[in-house]
Amino acid sequence: MAHIDLGVDETQFPGITGPMRFRPETARPLNELAEVLLRGPHSLTAGERELIAAYVSGLNECDFCRNSHSAFAAAQLDEGMALVDQVRANLDEAPVSAKLRALLRIAGAVQETGRKVTADHVESARTEGATDIEIHDTVLIAAAFCMYNRYVDGLATLAPTDPERYAQSARRIIEHGYTN
Amino acid sequence: MAHIDLGVDETQFPGITGPMRFRPETARPLNELAEVLLRGPHSLTAGERELIAAYVSGLNECDFCRNSHSAFAAAQLDEGMALVDQVRANLDEAPVSAKLRALLRIAGAVQETGRKVTADHVESARTEGATDIEIHDTVLIAAAFCMYNRYVDGLATLAPTDPERYAQSARRIIEHGYTN
Repeated sequence: MAHIDLGVDETQFPGITGPMRFRPETARPLNELAEVLLRGPHSLTAGERELIAAYVSGLNECDFCRNSHSAFAAAQLDEGMALVDQVRANLDEAPVSAKLRALLRIAGAVQETGRKVTADHVESARTEGATDIEIHDTVLIAAAFCMYNRYVDGLATLAPTDPERYAQSARRIIEHGYTN
Repeated sequence: MAHIDLGVDETQFPGITGPMRFRPETARPLNELAEVLLRGPHSLTAGERELIAAYVSGLNECDFCRNSHSAFAAAQLDEGMALVDQVRANLDEAPVSAKLRALLRIAGAVQETGRKVTADHVESARTEGATDIEIHDTVLIAAAFCMYNRYVDGLATLAPTDPERYAQSARRIIEHGYTN
């Protein structure tokens, strides 16, 4: 049970959805930020950006966000959940492009603290073809999930265990986005 | 110098202001979130909420955000910068209300990870009179600054050392808010 009374049935509104119903004033910018970062026009695919979100949420051990964004990434990547699992288990060996691997390493540094991102991290990404906006958005996606993860777990919200719940959410997000 | 070319003179647009000029699409929800959390209608004063932001930014060792929100808190608290310094130096002994101390302890837990917030933390805050919305917003302010801090430092932006720069920003924020 969540730390505060969210005014909803948590089995119907698990994870971040309960606090977002409780406080629509903050839900609006939180959803707008997710929409721009994860689904707005971009040179990285939505699947690649959701993979960054899933990777950071896994490092933060936030079950709800990790399960959600793993499902959202899997549904939008040709390689599906197998690739998400490989990235989360062993980034060095996972079959992603050299550019995406370098961006995921930046995201992993941000998860620890912004000060862990080095000029070498950024140079490696640039050498593999990453643009300034891709580097910027990778830093901000990773930083944003350090917020979403803490928001969800700091209020002790419910994380469903049934994978089908997350697959359903993936279909809804892909069809309607974060702001609807 | 920042890790990417922000397209601005960083001495004129230090800290988060450079990346916000570089990427206005993400700046909009980031500023809207700060406006609602730190300046929207609330039972906690703006000074108290800025103090939570300053406290978390200090724990994250983000110079730009710590200096900024310490100045914003100081300008809106009767006790000024002396109180901000006391809270940051020794929360247990700082002359704040028992409720604010309990909320700052929740914020400190969130800074580590959301999973560090315990039922005891929340019960202590509630015993001292904290409402559910005050607990919710404390968790989200702390989580949000774990994002802003990582954004600012993950891009290696400039943090001015002259306190007058931050005092100027405080006057601008108090007059115009985060979204103007």
